[in-house]
Formats: sequence, C-alpha cells, structure tokens
Amino acid sequence: MYNKGAKHERELLEMFWKEGFAVVRSAGSGKTRHPNPDLVVSNGKRFYAIECKSSKMEVIVIPGWQVEELEKFSRIFGAEAVLAIRFNHSQWRFLRPEQMERTGGGNFKTTRTHSEANGALFEETAGKWKQERLA
Amino acid sequence: MYNKGAKHERELLEMFWKEGFAVVRSAGSGKTRHPNPDLVVSNGKRFYAIECKSSKMEVIVIPGWQVEELEKFSRIFGAEAVLAIRFNHSQWRFLRPEQMERTGGGNFKTTRTHSEANGALFEETAGKWKQERLA
Repeated sequence: MYNKGAKHERELLEMFWKEGFAVVRSAGSGKTRHPNPDLVVSNGKRFYAIECKSSKMEVIVIPGWQVEELEKFSRIFGAEAVLAIRFNHSQWRFLRPEQMERTGGGNFKTTRTHSEANGALFEETAGKWKQERLA
Repeated sequence: MYNKGAKHERELLEMFWKEGFAVVRSAGSGKTRHPNPDLVVSNGKRFYAIECKSSKMEVIVIPGWQVEELEKFSRIFGAEAVLAIRFNHSQWRFLRPEQMERTGGGNFKTTRTHSEANGALFEETAGKWKQERLA
C-alpha cells in the first residue's frame, strides 16, 4: 500500500542538500529501540526531524506510535517534527503532526487532496530561513 | 587495523540517549556523495556531529578528507565536529579535529596516550550543558 521507500528518502536528502541544508539519513527503519526519524536536516537555523511516507494510493495512514516517537525525538533534539508526504505524480508536501487528520484508532492520516490543501511545499519548508534573513 | 564498527557506534548511541540526548545513526558509511558523520547528537543545547573510530592497536589514523567532510557537515548543520576515539580496554575519548595530531600526508592521528592526554571523557562531553544550566 505504501512504504518508507529509501529511494524517496534519498530524493528528499538530495533536495535539502541542494538548498544548503546538511542531512543525515538514519540507519535502520521501522520500530527501533529509540525514536528514529528517517531524516534529520538543518542549516543551523531550521532543524527538522522528518518521517517520509509515500504512496501510490490516495491515502496515507501513519501509526500513532510512530508520530509520537517523531515528536519525542524532535523535543529532545531540538527540531521541528515534520511528516514528508509524497503521493505518486505529486510534489512533496510537508505537514506538522497537528496538521494531519486523525483516525478513530489514534492513527494519523492524510489524502492527496488533504495534503495539497494543508501541507507546505518544499520551497516553503526549505526557504523559510531565507525569508527570515530578508525580514 | 581499525574500523568504523557499527557495534561501537551503537554503544555510543546508547550512552548519549541515557544522558538525555537524541541520537541519529547515519545510513551508509565510508565515502558517500555527501558528508555523512556516523552519529548526529543533540539535546537542544549541544549539537555534535561525530565520527567514531575504534582500534585494537595503539594508533588511529583518520584520512584528511574524512575530517574535512565532518567539518563541512558540522558547519552547515550547526554542530560541533567531534572525533570519538575508542582504544580497546579504554574509555571513549572525544577530540576536536584541531586536537588531533597530523601526519605528513595530511591525515589526522591519535594514539592511546595522546587521546587520553588530550581527549574529553564522555561525562565531560555529555555533561557540559548541565554545567551551563547550573552556572
């Protein structure tokens, strides 16, 4: 249905490097002993801990525990928790956990339509600090 | 002679988590397309990009390019570049690149004796921020 997709993680890694961020892609995946986001990204001004999800379908569901772990990691590390969402033939969308929809079972959900309406584009996510410097 | 040792990286990862840091261990190793430190570690106050080196011998040599990449990553990310050195039957020692010895060929070097005389202990490295909070 959907997977973490190392290929998509690497795609995003390249995009952030090109925009002047340093990126580390984590070893291991899935449920590890400690919270373990897919990517940790920073340019010394913005720090993002990122969980990547891609899908060929129209909906992505993320287990509640995985979002909790992302938030825990981010709180300790000093980063913003971000869900990077990639539907086939669509651009990456970046959502904070509170921007996701909830399911009855305590999981997090977004659709192609919902992510396009609520998620930031890559340019906004990577470009924020430039805007701040200009301001 | 010596290796990066995923086992040693995981040991250090556990130590930092126990001291209240969040840690990400990087996927891949050796020469990658982008700078790729073994561990990136933060508690929201201290940010460390760490290259781990362990040895059963009495000397560890780190190629110049690898230290340069560590420093590049650290500069962009907003972290302190740290070489984590582990000789058999000795504790971890933490050295900044400028604390290492140099070889004629532009590489970086430390011995058991040199690392014990010049490197910080784990407690000092992880404990710095506590001291700052108390100060």
